Amino acid sequence: MTEPLAPGAVIGMLGGGQLGRMLSMAAARLGFRCHIFEPGAAPPAGQVAEAVTTAGYDDLDALRRFAEVVDVITYEFENIPTAALDVLEALRPIHPGRRALAVSQDRLTEKEFLRGLGLQTAPFAPVDDAAGLEAALAAIGTPAILKTRRLGYDGKGQTRLTAPGDAAEALAAMAGAPAILEGFVEFSHEVSVIAARGQDGAVACFDPGENVHRDGILATTTVPARLSHAQRTDAVLLAGRILNALDYVGVMGVELFVTRGGLIVNEIAPRVHNSGHWTQTGCVIDQFEQHIRAVAGWPLGDGQRHADVVMENLIGSDMDRVPELAAARDVALHLYGKAETRAGRKMGHANRIMRPG
Amino acid sequence: MTEPLAPGAVIGMLGGGQLGRMLSMAAARLGFRCHIFEPGAAPPAGQVAEAVTTAGYDDLDALRRFAEVVDVITYEFENIPTAALDVLEALRPIHPGRRALAVSQDRLTEKEFLRGLGLQTAPFAPVDDAAGLEAALAAIGTPAILKTRRLGYDGKGQTRLTAPGDAAEALAAMAGAPAILEGFVEFSHEVSVIAARGQDGAVACFDPGENVHRDGILATTTVPARLSHAQRTDAVLLAGRILNALDYVGVMGVELFVTRGGLIVNEIAPRVHNSGHWTQTGCVIDQFEQHIRAVAGWPLGDGQRHADVVMENLIGSDMDRVPELAAARDVALHLYGKAETRAGRKMGHANRIMRPG
Repeated sequence: MTEPLAPGAVIGMLGGGQLGRMLSMAAARLGFRCHIFEPGAAPPAGQVAEAVTTAGYDDLDALRRFAEVVDVITYEFENIPTAALDVLEALRPIHPGRRALAVSQDRLTEKEFLRGLGLQTAPFAPVDDAAGLEAALAAIGTPAILKTRRLGYDGKGQTRLTAPGDAAEALAAMAGAPAILEGFVEFSHEVSVIAARGQDGAVACFDPGENVHRDGILATTTVPARLSHAQRTDAVLLAGRILNALDYVGVMGVELFVTRGGLIVNEIAPRVHNSGHWTQTGCVIDQFEQHIRAVAGWPLGDGQRHADVVMENLIGSDMDRVPELAAARDVALHLYGKAETRAGRKMGHANRIMRPG
Repeated sequence: MTEPLAPGAVIGMLGGGQLGRMLSMAAARLGFRCHIFEPGAAPPAGQVAEAVTTAGYDDLDALRRFAEVVDVITYEFENIPTAALDVLEALRPIHPGRRALAVSQDRLTEKEFLRGLGLQTAPFAPVDDAAGLEAALAAIGTPAILKTRRLGYDGKGQTRLTAPGDAAEALAAMAGAPAILEGFVEFSHEVSVIAARGQDGAVACFDPGENVHRDGILATTTVPARLSHAQRTDAVLLAGRILNALDYVGVMGVELFVTRGGLIVNEIAPRVHNSGHWTQTGCVIDQFEQHIRAVAGWPLGDGQRHADVVMENLIGSDMDRVPELAAARDVALHLYGKAETRAGRKMGHANRIMRPG
């Protein structure tokens, strides 16, 4: 463990979307300055960061110059190319580290890692070609989902198979990319645990939130989630097991299916997570500050919740509801500064405080 | 009243200190972009704003260019020169408006304005010269404080007179500036009301906080303050009277002395106020967002408090306590990103949540 980063230090952030934006503001609260690295022009995080480098993740010179002017590097998304990581890691510490990225960048590696820890996952099988898909379907059955192993999010790169006859079309949709077939799990609801691990190995968890998706995108997260005491304990224990196994530093989102047979890990994200946005309104130290604290080698907040909260994503035309939400006395609005409203695009979120205290 | 400002609009901010910094972050939460105008290099607010103009308030061309690229103008301090206001006001709306600035830039005008509303103030008299000071001392007695009418804050530009014999020295300290002699008030404690008024004339008040000063600088603010129900009502009523009389738009800090004879107005500040920092931890919508909402023509938050909070300023070497404060589970830290720690300089604050709910 290195010395805690002193206020005034510069945190380098890969990715300039809304997560990077809220991380930048959390970093500023602790007196840190932020430098955003982002390929796209006018990133939302750039509006609240001290510096922005606009360059692609394949621009190794730009990455090198970026690393040289920051004190530590973190990221808001997990799909950072390996060559970029090689350049950055040679110059500055990156948190969370390579192992967490390797695991979460590949759905197959992730599932195998989770199974290796003794945790439950949906049934899965690798699919590299038609023969592999046939074998996978024989083992798992339908309905099932064929997903690219890498680079999928919010329902992209996924095809649902309702019968074995869908195989050819589904495989064609993968465009030759290595894939994984996942079976369906009968679950009553989905929850997620936002967990953090500090450089000293301390683990802190926020209360699990209950997630509702619409069109493959998170719509709402509600705390407290419907869970028994034993399920809450299990959720914390399994999150701790994952973080410790990865020697993880930072915040992780762990999505869980609640089933009669226990909690099943859906997926993990090595970063702050949409389902943790409620912590901005429900906790003294939110997930964004928690992540910055971990990355900076500071002590973690303990995750205590002081209110019930419903977080609602504002997607596309939900922006029309901003005047109404702004007038509600129990709603904290968070808008992301995106210039263009598009269908399916996350434009902001609203945290409704349900029962203070 | 104009149309509410749409997310994406640019808020121009005069002053780039910690208040401007926290206002910038609040504006960003609502999807606004911020442009800071500040004479000093590397302002704390610049770290979290989209744009910074570095120029003096006497640089009328720079002010004009600044005004032309923003949608509305506000400020973090009240001592904006008249010529600067003339240039800005001709181009864009400024909130709070000229009348509030005229009143609060001059201690004598302010006291006369408050008295005109039927509110209690400390005894006062204008002092322009030795004869004036003699007359003022005859009326008010000692101890008393001689203050410049303009441009004082945090105890600067003030001299205490313990006996009439101090008159010559005190007057010399004013260096010829118009002054005001203020008598002392016997008070049990000081409280402040952070009040807001929207463009629609709606008024909202946060719960009064109780202030403790050290060396003339605010040390702590505690909510709830020690006040009777009637005193709380009085505090809200008098704040409303002040805001309405000024046709005010924005947040104002109203400092009050609690005395046996009722509440006495110490001073008003036409901006967010140090004694309102606790709202970041105790309210869904804090004073910074409240101010931005008013300036942008949005509905105000209602000011409801959901926790007891003690706000402590971190001044100068208090920064040595950051590691300890960072490790406390009930403390939200806010550091201002100032490069240099100096004695008497506000470096940050810590909001300790005492009793959630």
